[in-house]
Formats: sequence, structure tokens, C-alpha cells
Amino acid sequence: MSDQDFRWPIRVYYEDTDAQGVVYYANYFRFLERARTEWLRALGVDQVRMLREERRMFVVVSTQADFVMPARFNDEIVATAGLAGLGRATFDIAQEIHRGPDLLLRSSVRVALLDADTLKPKRVPHSLFQGNEHAS
Amino acid sequence: MSDQDFRWPIRVYYEDTDAQGVVYYANYFRFLERARTEWLRALGVDQVRMLREERRMFVVVSTQADFVMPARFNDEIVATAGLAGLGRATFDIAQEIHRGPDLLLRSSVRVALLDADTLKPKRVPHSLFQGNEHAS
Amino acid sequence: MSDQDFRWPIRVYYEDTDAQGVVYYANYFRFLERARTEWLRALGVDQVRMLREERRMFVVVSTQADFVMPARFNDEIVATAGLAGLGRATFDIAQEIHRGPDLLLRSSVRVALLDADTLKPKRVPHSLFQGNEHAS
Amino acid sequence: MSDQDFRWPIRVYYEDTDAQGVVYYANYFRFLERARTEWLRALGVDQVRMLREERRMFVVVSTQADFVMPARFNDEIVATAGLAGLGRATFDIAQEIHRGPDLLLRSSVRVALLDADTLKPKRVPHSLFQGNEHAS
Repeated sequence: MSDQDFRWPIRVYYEDTDAQGVVYYANYFRFLERARTEWLRALGVDQVRMLREERRMFVVVSTQADFVMPARFNDEIVATAGLAGLGRATFDIAQEIHRGPDLLLRSSVRVALLDADTLKPKRVPHSLFQGNEHAS
Repeated sequence: MSDQDFRWPIRVYYEDTDAQGVVYYANYFRFLERARTEWLRALGVDQVRMLREERRMFVVVSTQADFVMPARFNDEIVATAGLAGLGRATFDIAQEIHRGPDLLLRSSVRVALLDADTLKPKRVPHSLFQGNEHAS
Repeated sequence: MSDQDFRWPIRVYYEDTDAQGVVYYANYFRFLERARTEWLRALGVDQVRMLREERRMFVVVSTQADFVMPARFNDEIVATAGLAGLGRATFDIAQEIHRGPDLLLRSSVRVALLDADTLKPKRVPHSLFQGNEHAS
Repeated sequence: MSDQDFRWPIRVYYEDTDAQGVVYYANYFRFLERARTEWLRALGVDQVRMLREERRMFVVVSTQADFVMPARFNDEIVATAGLAGLGRATFDIAQEIHRGPDLLLRSSVRVALLDADTLKPKRVPHSLFQGNEHAS
């Protein structure tokens, strides 16, 4: 995680946990997307307007995650997001989840920009991330 | 539950449970909707075609549920559905969830048929439920 | 909703919505529980300590909800919670979900306090809600 | 996918989809776990007994997924599972999701066997997978 990474606080509720007493593994991907959505918002991206007016939307192309330590009910955790790579039709985001000093999860996500009607890839405007490169 | 009620078997996975060790309360409503969807399918309703060709869709208007006993990870349960009332623009469904002889949950749901574009109510075709009245 | 009701802001993410373009009906119950959890926290209830040290936990006994208007992706909504009734082993919570001036959902929930080991009901300490009655 | 891979049919319900009209990306990980749970059951693993009597449980250590094509409401899809590697304290599972002839998702998952009390890794009994190697 770099100092420039976007940080989004999340509270763990019962809905996020499972009978093993910890956060259900698929639900970390929800947390990661909340952080990405808020990071994009902080960068000035209005996904609703983008879809309505430009018929473009972001979709996850691939993802990888290492589950290091579990989060539990009532935990206050932080999900981060930072640009890790920028291609023509995709960009890579490096993400982590922390609880205080502890790293709970490390993930990378590749996102594409698609035409919402044809589902064809669209060029990602590089200006979007000016000055937001992730220094890994 | 009546003998004529539709029955849909469901397996409880980790995704359905929470840190209290039982199915998370909101997730029973997912189970109930799976049973309603399969019941409508058994009645000959193709929701995908209905939305695409007729621009009509079902929405839940209100619901009530009594949580009698909890379901747990790996349980094999059965969700039921039966018509409990039929109005002009809505219909009522009586539902239960059982585990073997045990009643786990009792619910009633009011569903409306809407125009998918205007969200205005549409008349529910009563022929849909011919011979499927719920004898409570 | 009374002026004294607890209010909890919630952002709608993709995870909350479904292919009808609105929040999936079962997910409103998650929102309602987030508001209840935060309301209990504001009243000084530490559910983690309560479970670990006193082996007591809250469970939903029954719930009712009217879905008035749908919430959509990216909406900022507010879920409320207020005490609506107080019994020996249960208490009733009146809840609503709003988007700005619009009422989206109205719900009531009955919660019991259980012994976490025997699942037997425990007396609800009335001191918990001193001065928090819901004036409906 | 090998011919020997375990196959588990799944119906897509509204609960699985999001406002983009397709299955929400995190929910594919639920589908994958259903297939793993049923595959383990077919191999004779009783996870409930294992946890209660031996205090051992499986946890996901890492996962990777390529999202090739989206699944939609009402789709009938198939999730597969096959052993892709077997270590001392972990094993790797190769998984795919198909809709008829179409590959929708390709994933690999590393699972560890943990002591449920200490969360320390336990040796995976290789006899478990006798004759179930994944021929990739």
C-alpha cells in the first residue's frame, strides 16, 4: 500500500459474517468494490451519469486475493485502492484490507470499461488517473 | 401449509449463515423468493420473456415473517409457496420453511405486477392461478 | 418516524441491487439491521462483549415491511430506528428508510434477547431504553 | 476442465444479479463455494461432523478468477471443481462456470485445513482425494 492510496472505512455487520465466525470470503469482494466505487467518486467519476449519458460501465475482468487474517463481527476495517497499471482498455487496481496495523487481505483487480449496449471494450481515458499512480 | 402448496428444496451453505451460527435473518427472504420464482415457473410464468416482450415485472409490495426456529449450515430445508389471495393488481402468497417435521418460518408476501417502464400497476391475470388456491 | 429516532446514513452499492435495477428486496433488511446495530451501539450496547461475557444475543423474532418506493444504485438513503414497544423478553422497533423527503420503506421488527447457549429467552433490561421511547 | 471434474448445476435468481443486469462479480464466489461444498460431500467429507468432532475446518487461503462472460437472471449454469494440486497443509482446486457450451468463468482456489480453535494449519489427509486428481 502506498501513502497515496485511497482509504475507505468499513464496519463489519452480521450480514458479512458466516457460521465460521468470520467474514465470509466472498464478502471481502463487496468491501473491495465499495472502496473502488468511492475511490472513483473521489476521482470525479459519476458512474450513474456515465451509464445514462455515455452508456459506458466498468466491469471486473479478473481478480486475485490472498486472505491473510480474518475480520470478525463489529470490526472496524479499512479497504484501500490505488492504481497499479493502466492499459488501453483496462486498468489494474491494487487493494488491501487492514484492521488497525494488521493486514487482512491483499488483492489485485483488473477492470475494463465497456460499452453498456454492445459490451465492447472502450478506451480508458488516462486523464482520469492523473497523479494517482500506485507506488507499489 | 396446504397439501397443494408448491415445495422447493434448499441446501444451506456458509454464504447463508452468520456469526451467530445460524442462517442470517435477511437470507430467509432469498430462500422465499427462490420458492416463489420456481412456483411461478411451475405455473408456466416465464419472467424473462414477460419482462422482455411485455415489459411487465413482479415486485414485492409488503412482507411479514415469523422466525420460529433457526436453520443451520448444511441443513436441507424446504420452502413452500401457495396462493393466499388474489386482488386486481396484487396477489398474496403464503409461505413456510420447514426442516423435516419442524416449522422454521412462516411468511406472507404481497406481490404486484408492474409495468416495467412506468412502474404503474397492471391487472394480474387470474387465469394464472386457476386451481392453485391456497387452502389455509 | 419521530424526531428522537436514530438515523443511520447508507450508500447503495452494486452489491445491494438486482437486475430489476433497484435494491433487491431482501437487502433492505440488511440496511435495517445496520441501523439497529448502530442504534444499540449508540445506546451503549456492546454486542460482542454481551455475547462473550454474558452469553446473550439479540435475535429477530418477527418482522413486517412495506416497500413504498425503490432505492437505486448510488442513492444516499437513511435508515431509522426507534423503540416502539417493550415487553418482558422482547422489544419492538419501528424503522423507516428515506431518500431525502421520500419514504421508501416502513418496517417493524420484534427482537428477543436469548441465552446464546440454551436459546431460552432472557429478560430485556428496560434501563437500556430509558428515554428512547418511539413516539409514533 | 477435465472429464472427471465434479459438476454442480446452479440456477441464477434475482438475489445473484445487480443493476448492470448480470450476476454481481462477488456472487460467483458463492457459486464456486457451493460446488466445492458439494464436491467435498461427494468425496465423503462431512464438514459439520468434522468441525464438531475434530475441530477442523476448511478456509480459503487465496483465489484467482477470470470473468469471461456474464451470467444473467434465470440462467442455468454449471460450476465445476477438480483437484489441481495437493500440498502438506493446503490443496488447490481448479474451477469453472459454464452455461451450456460457453465458459463464463475460470478460477483457482487454494484451501487450507485449520484447527478451528488455534487456527493453526493441519495436515491435509491425501487419502481424501485418491483418484480425484484434476487432469488439466
